[in-house]
Amino acid sequence: MGRDLIEFEEPADTKEEILVATYEALAKHGYAELTIAKIGDEFEKAPSVIYHHYDDKEALVLDCLEFLLERFEASLTGGPEEAPDVALRRFVDETFEAITDEPARLVTTLVELRVRATHDDFHEHFTRSDRLFHDHLVAIVRRGVDDGTFADCDPDRVAALLLTTLTGALYRATTSDAEAALEATRTELYAYLEARLELARDSEPSA
Amino acid sequence: MGRDLIEFEEPADTKEEILVATYEALAKHGYAELTIAKIGDEFEKAPSVIYHHYDDKEALVLDCLEFLLERFEASLTGGPEEAPDVALRRFVDETFEAITDEPARLVTTLVELRVRATHDDFHEHFTRSDRLFHDHLVAIVRRGVDDGTFADCDPDRVAALLLTTLTGALYRATTSDAEAALEATRTELYAYLEARLELARDSEPSA
Repeated sequence: MGRDLIEFEEPADTKEEILVATYEALAKHGYAELTIAKIGDEFEKAPSVIYHHYDDKEALVLDCLEFLLERFEASLTGGPEEAPDVALRRFVDETFEAITDEPARLVTTLVELRVRATHDDFHEHFTRSDRLFHDHLVAIVRRGVDDGTFADCDPDRVAALLLTTLTGALYRATTSDAEAALEATRTELYAYLEARLELARDSEPSA
Repeated sequence: MGRDLIEFEEPADTKEEILVATYEALAKHGYAELTIAKIGDEFEKAPSVIYHHYDDKEALVLDCLEFLLERFEASLTGGPEEAPDVALRRFVDETFEAITDEPARLVTTLVELRVRATHDDFHEHFTRSDRLFHDHLVAIVRRGVDDGTFADCDPDRVAALLLTTLTGALYRATTSDAEAALEATRTELYAYLEARLELARDSEPSA
């Protein structure tokens, strides 16, 4: 959920190149304004190659979301494991930083796309995506309880509240003027984490 | 935010009749499927009367949202004042009840409309609407602190976290399969309210 565009490894094949180009075009233009031609602008091969693989924008964007989720999933394994308090603070802070001041265009686009989930296949994607973030948070909290970093608690419930609150923060940030309310939310969320897990906020929010 | 359609007092004039009809048509059909003709079906006069007052759907729906908000605002004053713990529990529970099992069509519609706020006048409406709910929650919490029902706390921060979490719950409920996560969120939100305000959940969720 960081503010900057993800840097991808060299795409494995043409299909991955298309998905990376779609991601870049989505981050620039949003969903409503997105056209295959605009994706073509981010793509080194001829736009006709895109039409060869996809004939509608919705299927292409859905594959792009799945691709982003797989990359996030892959990033969770491998690499040195962070201490649970560092990992939890980072998750919370990166979410709030992504929406402070001007929410990144991509965050706004994701919030919009998610609402398409009231109708169609996006629903399934965001259910899977929430499940993944939820499990990630449960794992961090459980690790912290087990190694004594956190006070004893029900990791499933803590993860549920955290994810619902952070999702609400993304939604409010992109659909209203909520800067002060979200700063207050962040402060209070840390008061909750301190009361519940004994997790201190430690650092001031970065600007 | 209750599950059932609001019962309005006798509309004061034709314009209010149109807004009530719009509300009923929105709750039935959602925004995308809404047409002036469908609003006409909920309206006792000729549909041409609607065209006389409004020439686009967006302006009509926006006025309808403002109308609903004014009704809610009016309902906050007058009538006997509830004890702060009763009022707070009712606010939380009614929100969760509106989204348990099948979220009401109107809730889904509101979540969809709110996302239009990334673009246009809806933004201003939802900023105002959030401000109103926020102030309502601040007033309840402050009253509870003042009369000793609640433990001492910062009412502004508590209200911010509550509203962000409840907004996130509405958003998740309408855009993913989140039943278990939302039940866990509700349980944990009460654990937070107990830790922070000494508010006991008291009653089990009604089915």
